[in-house]
Amino acid sequence: MKRTLGTCYYPEHWPEAQWPEDARRMADLGLTWVRIGEFAWSLLEPAPGRYDWDWLDRAIDVLTGAGLSVVLGTPSATPPRWILDRFPDMLAHDAEGRPRKFGSRRHYDFAHAGYRDAAARMAGLMAERYGDRIAAWQTDNEYGCHDTTVSWSPVAQDAFRIWLKDKYGTITNLNDAWGNIFWSMTYDDFGQIGLPNLTVTEPNPSHALAFRRFASDMVVDWNAAQVAAIRAHSDAPISHNYMGRVTDFDHYAVARQMEIATWDSYPMGFLLDRVPGGDKAAYLRQGDPDFQAFHHDLYRACGAGRWWVMEQQPGPVNWAPWNPAPLPGMVRLWSWEAFAHGAEAVCWFRWRQFPQAQEQQHAGLLRPDSSEAAGFAEAAQVAAELRDAPDVAAVQAPVALIFDYASQWAWEVQPQGVGFDHFALCFDLYRALRSLGLSVDILPPDTASLGGYAFTLVPGLLSLTDPLRAAIEAADGLVLTGPRTDLKTSELSIPTPMGPNLPGLAATSVMEETFPPEAPRGLPAGGGIDLWLEHIETTAEVVERTTDGAPVLLRHGKRAHLAGWPDKMAARRIIGALARDAGLTTVDLPEGLRIRDTGTERFVFNYASHPLDYDGKTLDPAGILRLSLPS
Amino acid sequence: MKRTLGTCYYPEHWPEAQWPEDARRMADLGLTWVRIGEFAWSLLEPAPGRYDWDWLDRAIDVLTGAGLSVVLGTPSATPPRWILDRFPDMLAHDAEGRPRKFGSRRHYDFAHAGYRDAAARMAGLMAERYGDRIAAWQTDNEYGCHDTTVSWSPVAQDAFRIWLKDKYGTITNLNDAWGNIFWSMTYDDFGQIGLPNLTVTEPNPSHALAFRRFASDMVVDWNAAQVAAIRAHSDAPISHNYMGRVTDFDHYAVARQMEIATWDSYPMGFLLDRVPGGDKAAYLRQGDPDFQAFHHDLYRACGAGRWWVMEQQPGPVNWAPWNPAPLPGMVRLWSWEAFAHGAEAVCWFRWRQFPQAQEQQHAGLLRPDSSEAAGFAEAAQVAAELRDAPDVAAVQAPVALIFDYASQWAWEVQPQGVGFDHFALCFDLYRALRSLGLSVDILPPDTASLGGYAFTLVPGLLSLTDPLRAAIEAADGLVLTGPRTDLKTSELSIPTPMGPNLPGLAATSVMEETFPPEAPRGLPAGGGIDLWLEHIETTAEVVERTTDGAPVLLRHGKRAHLAGWPDKMAARRIIGALARDAGLTTVDLPEGLRIRDTGTERFVFNYASHPLDYDGKTLDPAGILRLSLPS
Amino acid sequence: MKRTLGTCYYPEHWPEAQWPEDARRMADLGLTWVRIGEFAWSLLEPAPGRYDWDWLDRAIDVLTGAGLSVVLGTPSATPPRWILDRFPDMLAHDAEGRPRKFGSRRHYDFAHAGYRDAAARMAGLMAERYGDRIAAWQTDNEYGCHDTTVSWSPVAQDAFRIWLKDKYGTITNLNDAWGNIFWSMTYDDFGQIGLPNLTVTEPNPSHALAFRRFASDMVVDWNAAQVAAIRAHSDAPISHNYMGRVTDFDHYAVARQMEIATWDSYPMGFLLDRVPGGDKAAYLRQGDPDFQAFHHDLYRACGAGRWWVMEQQPGPVNWAPWNPAPLPGMVRLWSWEAFAHGAEAVCWFRWRQFPQAQEQQHAGLLRPDSSEAAGFAEAAQVAAELRDAPDVAAVQAPVALIFDYASQWAWEVQPQGVGFDHFALCFDLYRALRSLGLSVDILPPDTASLGGYAFTLVPGLLSLTDPLRAAIEAADGLVLTGPRTDLKTSELSIPTPMGPNLPGLAATSVMEETFPPEAPRGLPAGGGIDLWLEHIETTAEVVERTTDGAPVLLRHGKRAHLAGWPDKMAARRIIGALARDAGLTTVDLPEGLRIRDTGTERFVFNYASHPLDYDGKTLDPAGILRLSLPS
Ligand SMILES: [Zn+2]
Ligand SMILES: [Zn+2]
Ligand SMILES: [Zn+2]
Repeated sequence: MKRTLGTCYYPEHWPEAQWPEDARRMADLGLTWVRIGEFAWSLLEPAPGRYDWDWLDRAIDVLTGAGLSVVLGTPSATPPRWILDRFPDMLAHDAEGRPRKFGSRRHYDFAHAGYRDAAARMAGLMAERYGDRIAAWQTDNEYGCHDTTVSWSPVAQDAFRIWLKDKYGTITNLNDAWGNIFWSMTYDDFGQIGLPNLTVTEPNPSHALAFRRFASDMVVDWNAAQVAAIRAHSDAPISHNYMGRVTDFDHYAVARQMEIATWDSYPMGFLLDRVPGGDKAAYLRQGDPDFQAFHHDLYRACGAGRWWVMEQQPGPVNWAPWNPAPLPGMVRLWSWEAFAHGAEAVCWFRWRQFPQAQEQQHAGLLRPDSSEAAGFAEAAQVAAELRDAPDVAAVQAPVALIFDYASQWAWEVQPQGVGFDHFALCFDLYRALRSLGLSVDILPPDTASLGGYAFTLVPGLLSLTDPLRAAIEAADGLVLTGPRTDLKTSELSIPTPMGPNLPGLAATSVMEETFPPEAPRGLPAGGGIDLWLEHIETTAEVVERTTDGAPVLLRHGKRAHLAGWPDKMAARRIIGALARDAGLTTVDLPEGLRIRDTGTERFVFNYASHPLDYDGKTLDPAGILRLSLPS
Repeated sequence: MKRTLGTCYYPEHWPEAQWPEDARRMADLGLTWVRIGEFAWSLLEPAPGRYDWDWLDRAIDVLTGAGLSVVLGTPSATPPRWILDRFPDMLAHDAEGRPRKFGSRRHYDFAHAGYRDAAARMAGLMAERYGDRIAAWQTDNEYGCHDTTVSWSPVAQDAFRIWLKDKYGTITNLNDAWGNIFWSMTYDDFGQIGLPNLTVTEPNPSHALAFRRFASDMVVDWNAAQVAAIRAHSDAPISHNYMGRVTDFDHYAVARQMEIATWDSYPMGFLLDRVPGGDKAAYLRQGDPDFQAFHHDLYRACGAGRWWVMEQQPGPVNWAPWNPAPLPGMVRLWSWEAFAHGAEAVCWFRWRQFPQAQEQQHAGLLRPDSSEAAGFAEAAQVAAELRDAPDVAAVQAPVALIFDYASQWAWEVQPQGVGFDHFALCFDLYRALRSLGLSVDILPPDTASLGGYAFTLVPGLLSLTDPLRAAIEAADGLVLTGPRTDLKTSELSIPTPMGPNLPGLAATSVMEETFPPEAPRGLPAGGGIDLWLEHIETTAEVVERTTDGAPVLLRHGKRAHLAGWPDKMAARRIIGALARDAGLTTVDLPEGLRIRDTGTERFVFNYASHPLDYDGKTLDPAGILRLSLPS
Repeated sequence: MKRTLGTCYYPEHWPEAQWPEDARRMADLGLTWVRIGEFAWSLLEPAPGRYDWDWLDRAIDVLTGAGLSVVLGTPSATPPRWILDRFPDMLAHDAEGRPRKFGSRRHYDFAHAGYRDAAARMAGLMAERYGDRIAAWQTDNEYGCHDTTVSWSPVAQDAFRIWLKDKYGTITNLNDAWGNIFWSMTYDDFGQIGLPNLTVTEPNPSHALAFRRFASDMVVDWNAAQVAAIRAHSDAPISHNYMGRVTDFDHYAVARQMEIATWDSYPMGFLLDRVPGGDKAAYLRQGDPDFQAFHHDLYRACGAGRWWVMEQQPGPVNWAPWNPAPLPGMVRLWSWEAFAHGAEAVCWFRWRQFPQAQEQQHAGLLRPDSSEAAGFAEAAQVAAELRDAPDVAAVQAPVALIFDYASQWAWEVQPQGVGFDHFALCFDLYRALRSLGLSVDILPPDTASLGGYAFTLVPGLLSLTDPLRAAIEAADGLVLTGPRTDLKTSELSIPTPMGPNLPGLAATSVMEETFPPEAPRGLPAGGGIDLWLEHIETTAEVVERTTDGAPVLLRHGKRAHLAGWPDKMAARRIIGALARDAGLTTVDLPEGLRIRDTGTERFVFNYASHPLDYDGKTLDPAGILRLSLPS
C-alpha cells in the first residue's frame, strides 16, 4: 500500500479562473487526492429538475488535468432550499419535538422516505455522469454530526411503528419483550406507540433502546440507497467520512456496505467537549494523545483494513468552545500518526479558508487571500517525507478491544449512575493499554474469531452475541470481560439465569452499585473502583478485592472478569499485569508519549508540550521517532 | 398498638404458579401486610368496560389464605393506554406548555374531570368487589411524584378560571386582591386569565400563588372522589402513600379525608437531590440522619397519629443520580427508626425485583431469580426483634414545629433571594433540634392549641392563621417565631400595618435583605446569619444582634422572634439556649448520632459509618441502642 | 446647568386623598421632578376607545400645584389586557419560538405594526391633552428590558423579510452578501428566509447579524412613531429611560430622535449578573465601582450631553439574585457620582414602596406605610448639598472610547471563543482607564472627529466606519485600535485584502486564536493575554510580544494596535504607558477609589467598604471628596 495525501476543495466557492492555479499548487504540494462536491447540490440542481453539470464537468477536467484523483461527494447533507418546499415534513426534530430548521446543514430526517429517494436519485445521476471519471465516492457528509441521527418527528414516529411491527410481529410479543405489564403500559396496537421522549418520568428502557436501534437502522437504510444508486453506474470505491465520538448509529453496519471507511480528524476541535477525561489543559494545542488513535483503530475495523483520514485539521477551527492554533509540528504529527495506524490517505480540510458563512474562521492550507497558512509548510514536509517511502502492509495488533454501538445506546438509556458511558469505559481501558505501549485492534461485537490476539478486552457489553461467545470459548489468548458485560438481554432486561453468562468463568452478579466520583471504592493494591461495582458470586479465583472485600478481578485459566470500573492507576496496574501474563511486553510510557507499531516500524509520538525521552532518545514537542522493528 | 411489617407485591408480574410460594415465604418472614394492585388497571380492565377480576380474586385468595392482610391500591396512577384515546386532553403539561406523554406513569392532569370520574368509578368497582375481603385501601400512588401536581395544560387553565371565580366572586375583587393596577394587568373577566407561566418577566406573585393553591386543591378534590367511591362500599381504612419532600399539594388537607397516612421512605434515593444541605459524602450508604425522621414526624401529623411506611428501601434503587448499596444494618435501622417515631407498619418495596421495564435495577427483598437479596436477612432480623415486642402507645413530643405547604409555595413564588425555601428553613431548625437530642412533633399551620409543648417554632410562615395566632396567645410554653413569619397577607402582599403582627411581642420589619451564601452576616456570639435578614423595629428586648448591630433575636417573656436564617452553628446555639430556657434537657450529639424518645424508650441510632459513643456505650455503624425511659 | 432631583410616582396606586400630602413631602424634600403615568394605560383607556383622563388631570393639578415639574410617560410598555384581544399576534416570542404571555410587562413585539400604531396614537392623545402642562416626556419604559428586543415570532419573520428586501434589493445580492453558496443555503426568494433560530447547527453569521440589525431597527422605528405623535402636539423635550447593559438595540440611533437620554441606575441590582468581571463579593452593598460610570458616560454620548438618571436605586430591590441593603451613604454617593458625570437630574425610583404585585419588595423613599425608608435621609442630604450649588457646564474628557452596538451583536453571533463580548472588552479597558484616574467620553462608531482627545481607544470594532477611519486619519491624539478591530466587513465576512485596514499602521491579521481562561498567553513585561490573540504581520514597530514571540502591541507614530485581550495587569500597564505617552497624568488608584473630573472639580468616590486615602485625605466607606480644579 502506497501512502498518499489530499485535500478538500470547493471549486464552486471560487472564480473559475482560479481553479487551474489551485490545481497546480495542489499537485506541486504532492497531493494525490482532491475531494469535491459534497455541499454543491444547489448549484447542480438550482431548481427542481433543472441540472447544471457544466461547471462540475470543467472543475473535474481541471483537477484531473493537473494529475489529481477526484473523490466525489454526494450532496445530500445540504439539500437546496426548494427541496424543503417539496417535503415540508422532511426536517429532523429535536428531543423537545421542535423541527430543526433550514439554514445550516443536515436538517433532514433519516426516516423520510421521500427525501431519501430524492437523495439517492441525485447520487445515481452523479454516478451516471462521473462514474468513470473519478477515483472514489463519498456518500453524504458526516452522518450523525450535530446530533441528527435521533429525530423526534412525526415522520420518525410513523416509521418507528412500521419498524416495530417488522421486528415484533404482534403487539403481544412487543408487550412481553418490553415488560409493559409494569405500570400498565400495555399497547393494544402498534399505532398507539409514541416516541420515548417527553414522558412524565423515564420511559421503558426497552422502548427507548428499540427507538435507538430504529434510528441507527434508518442511517443504514439511507446509506444503502445511495450505495445502490452509485453501484448501478460506477465501479469506483465508495466511502463515507465518519466523525469523532459520534455513536448514534452503528458504523460497522453502514461501513459494511462500502469499500473504504474514512473519518474527519479534528484533534483540537474534539478535545474540550468530546474526549472523556484526560488532562485537557496539557493538550490544548495538540489534542488528546489517545483520541485520534482510538478512532484510527475503530475506523480501520469499520473499513476492514481500508481507511483514510478524509478531513485533517490544518490549523485553528471555528467550532470548539475555544480555538487555539496547533503547536508547531502537530499538523505533521497528526498525519504521520494516521499513517502509523494504517491510513491509506490523509486529506487536509480545506484547501483554502472561505471568507464567508459558518466556517469563515476555519483555517485551510491557504489563507483566504491564497497565501500559505501556517499548516501548509507542515503538509509540504509530510509530502516530502512520503515521497520515497516504501509501500506498507497492514498487520494485526496483539491486543483486541470490543466496541459496540448498541451498548452505547443501552447505557445512555439506563446508566444507573451519572456518567456510565460505553465509549468512556472502552476509552479508559484503551488509554491504559496505550500507556503500556500496546497497539490495539478495535473489533465489532459480532466478531467470530479472536485468533491471533494474545489479549482481548470485552468491557461494558450489553450482552455477548452468539459469535463472540463462541469466539471467546475458542480463544487461545487471555480474554478479560467486564465490568457490566452480559448482565442484560439484548432487550435490556435482566436474564434468567442472571448474568454474566461467561464462557469458562462461573460468575453471577447479584447486585450492582453505582457511586459518585468523590466516593470511589479503594483497592488495597492501589487505585480504586469508580462509578460501577457489580457484586459477583463466583467459584472462580478472586484475584483482587475492594478494601470492603468485594471481588473485583476474577480469574479462571485464560478467562478473567473485572467487576468494577478501574480508575487510571488501577486500570494501568490490572491491565498491565494481565497483558504481561498474556505474554506481551509492556512499556511504562510517560504522559504524552505514545507508541504505534506497524509491521516494520515502531512510531513514537510526543504529544506533550515539553521534550520527552524514549529509549535514550529525546523527542521535542510534536516530535516523532521511528524505530525499525525486527520483521 | 402492635408494630407490624409488610411488603409490596405484584402478582400480575409473575406466573400464577409462583403465588403460593411467595405468600408462604412472606408469612414465614413474619410479614403481616401485602400491598397489591396499584398499577394493574390494564389487566383489570383490558378494554373499555371489559373487566377481568378473576386473577385478582385468586391472588387475594392466595395471599389471605397464607394469613396475610391485603392493602389494595386503586390503580389510577397508571391508566391503561386506551383511556388516553377516550380523553386525549387528559395529559398533564409541563411548565413549557408541552403535554407529558404516555409511556411511564402519572401522566394525568388532576384537573381533568373526565378522568377523575373514571378513576373514581374504578375505585368504586374495586371497593364493591373487594371491600370486605381486604384490610386497607391505598388511593392512587405517590401523588405529586415526578412533578405532576402543577400542570400547565388548557384543561388546567379552564379549571383555574372556575376556581378563581369561586374564590373571588367578581373580577374586581380579584384585581384588587392581586394589585393588578400595577403594570396595567387588570382583567375584565375571568376568561382572560392565563396560567402564570411563560410571561415576559415574573408574573404577579399573587397570581402565581393562587395557581399553586388551585393545583393543590385539584389533588384534594381528586382524592376526595376516590375516597367517596370507596366509602360507599367498604369500611376498611383508607390511606395514601406520600413521598419525600413533595410539597406541591397540601398533604394535611388530603390526609384529613382518610384514616391513615403512609409514606415511601427511600433514604438513599432521596439523599443526593432532595435533602437540603448536610454532609452527603458521609451518608452515601445511609441516607441523611434527619430526613426520614422529619417525614416520619410530618406524616404522623398528617395521619393524626396513625401512619405507616408503605414503601421502605431494601437495597439499591434505580432512580437516584447514583445508587449505592445500603451499609449493612441500615435496612434494619431505617425500619426501627420508623417504629421509634410511631409507625404502625413498615412495608418493604418490593417483594421481588422485576427484571424488566423502568425499575429493573430496583432491589427487592428477593432477587429476580427469587434468591434472597441482601436486605432479606435484615428484614428477617427486624421481624424477629418485633415478634415478642410489647404494644406501644403514641406520645406527644416536648417540641413542636409548624410546617406549612402554602408558605412553601409562597417563597417559591417570591424567594427574594436564591435559595429561600420553607422546607429547607424548617429542616435546618429541625436538624438543630435533633442535634440537641430533642424529639419533635410537626404541626399544621391551623393548629389551634399548643398545649403540652414546652417549645414551639414557627419559622417562615406566610401569615399567622387565626387559630394559630390564638394558640400562640394562649400558649404556656416558649414560642419562637421567624424568620420571615407573618410578613405578608395570605394573598402574598405586604399588610397594613406592616408585619409581623405577633401576639405578645411588638415588632415591625421595616426592610428585608437577602444575601449570597458567601456573604453571611456575622454574629458576635458565634455563627452567622445566612441569606435572610429582616430589619426589626421593636420595643422588646434585643437578645442578640449581628456584628453590624441589626437585631437578630428578640424576646418578650415566653415569646421570642428570630430575624434571620441562622447557620448551623448559630441555630444550634440559639435553639439550644431557648430550649433549655423552656425547661428542656439538651444533649450535645455528635454528627450522625440521633435520638428518638417514645413513651417508654429512648432509641439511639448511629447513621455514621464509624462507631460512636452514647452515654458510655459504643454503637457500631448502623447500630441501634435502646434505653428505658422512666414512665 | 442646574442640577436637580426627582422621583417616580404612581398616583393610580394610592387613594386620591393621599396625593396632596405626597406632593407636599416631595417638594419639602427638595425634589424638582416627578415622573408619572408610564404604566397606567388600563386606567386611561379601560376599554377600547373609552378614555378616563380625569384622574390624571387631577393628579397633574396636585403635583404641579405643589411646584413639581411633571415628566409624563407614554404607557406602551404595559398595554391593557383587551389590546391582546385585538392583536392576538402582538406577543413577542422567545428563542424557542413560544409566545411570551400577558401577565407582566413588555410582552409586545416591536415588529407588530398594529400595536405600534395603537401605541403611537395613545402617545398622541396624551400629548394633545397634556402637551403644554408637563415639563418633559418619556417614551415607553426601558426598551429591551427582559430580553424583549429580539423576538422570534411569525410577525417578526414577516417584517424581517420585508426589511431584507429593502436592504438587499434582490435575492442574488443577499445570497452573495451572505455567502449562501456555502452549504447550499442559497434562497430563491425572500419568502423562503426564516429566522436564524433552531437551526441544526449555527446559522450563517451574516444571516444572524442581519436579524439583529433588523431587531434594532424595529426599536428605532417604534420610538420614532411615538416621538412623531408627541411632537405634533408638544414642545416639551422627549426622553427615554434606558437600562444597564442592554445592548440589543442601537441606543445612539434611538436617542438621536430625542432631546434627552436617561437611564435607570440600579448599582446593586446589576452587580451580580450584568457586570463583567470584578470583585463582586467586595461590592455587594455598593455596586461595581465602574459600572454606573460607564453608563453615565455612554448615555451622556446618547443624549449629546443632556442626560439624567431617571430611576435611581434607593434601597434593596426585588429582582437581583440576592437583594441586600445599600451600605449607608451609597444612595448619596450614587447620586453625586451621576452629577459628577454631568447628569442634569437624578430621580429616585420610587416614591413609595407598593405593597402588592411584582415589585412589592422593591424599596422606595417611603415605606408602604408612608414612613421614611432608609434612603430618604440620604436623598434629603443630597438635596441639601445641592441647594446652594452653582450651575455647572459640560466638559470634554481627555480620553475617548468607541462603543458600538453592531459589534456587540457581531461577536455574540460569532464569538469564536466562549466569552468574547464587545461590552466586556470595552468595559475592561474602561476599568483600566478609570483605575489610572482618567475621565472618559464614550463615542459612537460613526464619530467623525476625535478633536480634543489626547487618547482614543477603538477596541473590538466589527469594521471601521468611513467617518471614523477619516477621524483617525486626522486625529492629533494617540489612537489605539484592537484587539479584533476591523477584521471583518460589515456583513461579518473576511475582507480582501485581509484586515485590519488601519490608517497609518500597516498590519494584517493572518490567523486568530482563542483560548480558555485557564490558558492565557504570558507577557514578559507582566500580565498576559486572555481569550483572544490575532497573529499580526506588520512593518510597524512591535513594542511588545507574548512569551512565544507573537506581536501584541504595535506602534507607528501616534497610532497603536493591540493584538490581544489584555488581562487586568497588562491592561493597566499598557494603557497607562500609552496614556502618559499621550501627555496625560495617571494616578495609581487603589481598588474601590474612583475619580471623575468635571470642568471645575475633581470628585473622588470611595466604593470600598473600608476607608481609603487620596492625596493625604481619608475617605470613609461611601465617602466623597471634592477638590477644586484649576479652571
Ligand atoms: Zn467536516
Ligand atoms: Zn414508589
Ligand atoms: Zn424600572
